[in-house]
Amino acid sequence: MTVSKVDIARAAIRAGTFSGHTSGIARDHVQGNIVILPQSLASDFLRFCQRNPKPCPVLAVSEPGDPMLPKLGRDIDIRTDVPRYRVWRRGELIDESTDIRKLWRDDLVTFVIGCSFSFEQALLDAGLSLRHIDQNRNVAMYRTNIQTEPAGPFHGPMVVSMRPLRAADAIRAIQVTSRFPDVHGAPVHIGDPSLIGIKELSLPDYGDAVEVMRDELPLFWACGVTPQAAITQARPEFCITHAPGAMLITDLLNHQLAAF
Amino acid sequence: MTVSKVDIARAAIRAGTFSGHTSGIARDHVQGNIVILPQSLASDFLRFCQRNPKPCPVLAVSEPGDPMLPKLGRDIDIRTDVPRYRVWRRGELIDESTDIRKLWRDDLVTFVIGCSFSFEQALLDAGLSLRHIDQNRNVAMYRTNIQTEPAGPFHGPMVVSMRPLRAADAIRAIQVTSRFPDVHGAPVHIGDPSLIGIKELSLPDYGDAVEVMRDELPLFWACGVTPQAAITQARPEFCITHAPGAMLITDLLNHQLAAF
Repeated sequence: MTVSKVDIARAAIRAGTFSGHTSGIARDHVQGNIVILPQSLASDFLRFCQRNPKPCPVLAVSEPGDPMLPKLGRDIDIRTDVPRYRVWRRGELIDESTDIRKLWRDDLVTFVIGCSFSFEQALLDAGLSLRHIDQNRNVAMYRTNIQTEPAGPFHGPMVVSMRPLRAADAIRAIQVTSRFPDVHGAPVHIGDPSLIGIKELSLPDYGDAVEVMRDELPLFWACGVTPQAAITQARPEFCITHAPGAMLITDLLNHQLAAF
Repeated sequence: MTVSKVDIARAAIRAGTFSGHTSGIARDHVQGNIVILPQSLASDFLRFCQRNPKPCPVLAVSEPGDPMLPKLGRDIDIRTDVPRYRVWRRGELIDESTDIRKLWRDDLVTFVIGCSFSFEQALLDAGLSLRHIDQNRNVAMYRTNIQTEPAGPFHGPMVVSMRPLRAADAIRAIQVTSRFPDVHGAPVHIGDPSLIGIKELSLPDYGDAVEVMRDELPLFWACGVTPQAAITQARPEFCITHAPGAMLITDLLNHQLAAF
């Protein structure tokens, strides 16, 4: 039996010896944003995702109480296989951890939501350069004036990530990311940031600012931080998420998500 | 035997009773730009098209001396089935006509080049509005500083057509037109016109100006006028083209050109 990169990464994450950012690790594999909620809120949250598929593309939902995600990997155990977790009570961050076995409950439901790492890999494979990767920064993210469709207690603004590209590359990036609807798909906006309520590109709400050159257009993609923002506003009794950038690495290949 | 819209239109064109613009006529059918050249220049021109597929997507090339185009229609005769022709000698327009039977020669080769009418229909079908159509104007076209790849005597700048759209519609338009590589495909540019050498959007080189609103982006597609501009520069001994807007209507359906 061959041991793959994803097996090595998962073993280190499971043992707690790797608890960092997963960008660039097992880069051909789909990674996911994680939201774990009590069953009492799960159907509202799933409806929220269904109504907002661009920021909240659901790759998998677990059975209540079951920590396994067989659709995403042979042996994924969501209690150990995320590098770093954040634990929330009533919308307040109360702990960070590399293992949530002691916190597990029979009513918890896991949501795995597509992540831009997949489409970024597709953009790099297409020969495009992404400035935040070249500069080893986190992508710039902004709250917009685009409202999500609410469901139950979940509501709030769409959060977007921004990548600057020259026009021909921008057109190519729209084509490439359109192939990946399960990981945010095509951009939601291009050009003038003020049209979606962003006042100042140099002041992102999350992540790091990157410069937009005079011959470039800013492109804005729906972002997986949107559901976390909605959860913070909904203040659920209990919730576990991944820590920013420390994603679940799945067995799925990015290419398997390509729509055409 | 049912008589279709395309049969009715072709009969009127063939009889010389219709010699106008074909925009909106048999709108589900592929229309084509026409270039007819002596065989001595045909291989250079075909190579020019091969090297510049976005402005010059070749739908069909006839056999030398054969006026029929069986790939594009059961009974198309290129000598009668274009509403209005232009006849050129050494790059000078010498005549317009609705019938070129008397000018036909055994060495003439017909090129049919894809036309934006097909992708405009796809954009309208996708629910987008196109201002030049709403305002019943010809599309605005511009010479750019993007040089075509030369072949033999054929060379010159790429000509583009411009359509203004709001950002979300611009992204959708890039997706929709990407499906149609045989009729110019995705835009070649979006945003700042000066980056492709266009000084003043209100002064198109061909067609009619349309306004670009503050919340819109101009999108620029490679245009079928590019080969005509290259032919004007090459000054071939003899050449016949369609008159602007008076296209060959084929039996092909636009949907048949969709790549995915």
